[in-house]
Amino acid sequence: MQKNGYRIQFTSSRIRDLMYRTTFDPKKMDGDIILNLSLIDKKDLDDVLGIFKMVISSGLSVTPYVKVISEGESIGDMTIEKGKVGIGTVCSITIDGVLLKAGIPVNPKLGGVVQIRNGIPVRFTDVLTYVSTTVDPLEILMSQGITSVSEMLRTGSGKVLANLREAPMVARDEIESNLSDLLDAGFSGILEVGEPNTRVLDVPIERDHLGIVVIGGTNPMAVVQEYGIPIDTSAMSRLISFKEMSRIEDLV
Amino acid sequence: MQKNGYRIQFTSSRIRDLMYRTTFDPKKMDGDIILNLSLIDKKDLDDVLGIFKMVISSGLSVTPYVKVISEGESIGDMTIEKGKVGIGTVCSITIDGVLLKAGIPVNPKLGGVVQIRNGIPVRFTDVLTYVSTTVDPLEILMSQGITSVSEMLRTGSGKVLANLREAPMVARDEIESNLSDLLDAGFSGILEVGEPNTRVLDVPIERDHLGIVVIGGTNPMAVVQEYGIPIDTSAMSRLISFKEMSRIEDLV
Repeated sequence: MQKNGYRIQFTSSRIRDLMYRTTFDPKKMDGDIILNLSLIDKKDLDDVLGIFKMVISSGLSVTPYVKVISEGESIGDMTIEKGKVGIGTVCSITIDGVLLKAGIPVNPKLGGVVQIRNGIPVRFTDVLTYVSTTVDPLEILMSQGITSVSEMLRTGSGKVLANLREAPMVARDEIESNLSDLLDAGFSGILEVGEPNTRVLDVPIERDHLGIVVIGGTNPMAVVQEYGIPIDTSAMSRLISFKEMSRIEDLV
Repeated sequence: MQKNGYRIQFTSSRIRDLMYRTTFDPKKMDGDIILNLSLIDKKDLDDVLGIFKMVISSGLSVTPYVKVISEGESIGDMTIEKGKVGIGTVCSITIDGVLLKAGIPVNPKLGGVVQIRNGIPVRFTDVLTYVSTTVDPLEILMSQGITSVSEMLRTGSGKVLANLREAPMVARDEIESNLSDLLDAGFSGILEVGEPNTRVLDVPIERDHLGIVVIGGTNPMAVVQEYGIPIDTSAMSRLISFKEMSRIEDLV
């Protein structure tokens, strides 16, 4: 007899679990957020923090907050092994958790690559829907060599990681009010809120719904990878208290 | 106004296009098959052919046939650049093309990683459905470091690339007759034909359908990658006449 834990789990189901456990309150700036966690070699920490600062100050992250975990320290059930450092960013699914807790039936739909031209998001060029993959889309896409986040930082044009959720248009006012609270709390990575019944960055949206595109919290990690520095990333890794995060400017 | 070609295309749509264009007749061993095509450095050719031979003779490929394309030679609209060699294998979606041409409504469903224990396929551990990704699942999964095809060859246990299609159980006799013709033509990579209305390697199947698991044609490429040899693979790259393929034993 096979244990249930052995069954494949699609990313959408994992996301619902994480959204349920999100307790972040943007007005109080307190509660638990979802963390993307990467492991890097300890010797690369200064370089990686430098890259993170550059990417974050260009707006290509969900928030300006990061978490550094030294070797030997633990986060949840995981202890950072010797010679390594953990570095985490806020995952954009935190926003879905906040919307859910406000009673909005938000549906995280897909992760993908968005082409930016002269600073303007043009369209999704590659996508994977959460309901149909057991591996996180952004984790997969960042190792395919199809992002060009560093080029985007240099020239204003390139391909960055982003994701899309849908919500009913009747909830529009409440969505905007929550996104505004999130913006005040430093969640500046909202790339586009679509008009109801309109494609968003070339992706069709369900009838009477609107699409919201948020920058991927793993873009800083993608740039580290583009620079050829070894990095092992688990997107949507675990929850952590927001109070444990630091603004990148306070670290570099 | 945006051109249609600019829209995202899911893999399932690309697969239907390729299946339609498949003209391979297993009885005549003639017609066009779908090719997975990789580019490698010319200097690595002998090593790569040695690996392909090992993987193919262990049964971890769709057929024992490969296609080598030298620098300067062309395949379709693509010319192999200087210093490179193209190497291709038969893509398992060719089987779906053959079933379609026999009037069987076969539905290629997902690509994934199958865990093998002591030579026996146990279950899919990771999957991506074709209907929901614009990037080929096996192409993505082979670069995630989650396959262990070379370990499977050494020890009989490991994780290999495979894919799953569904077909109505009413067509069972005709499916088996076609798979038998394909087997005679060297298509030995059929891993499992499920019982109707039964999970196949832990993946649920639609009511009154059966599931067919075929080994991924890109497993030889996955081993090359596991050995650290640079290889750039396009799964389901293009069609080619079966007559242009050679048995691996005639090359190494």
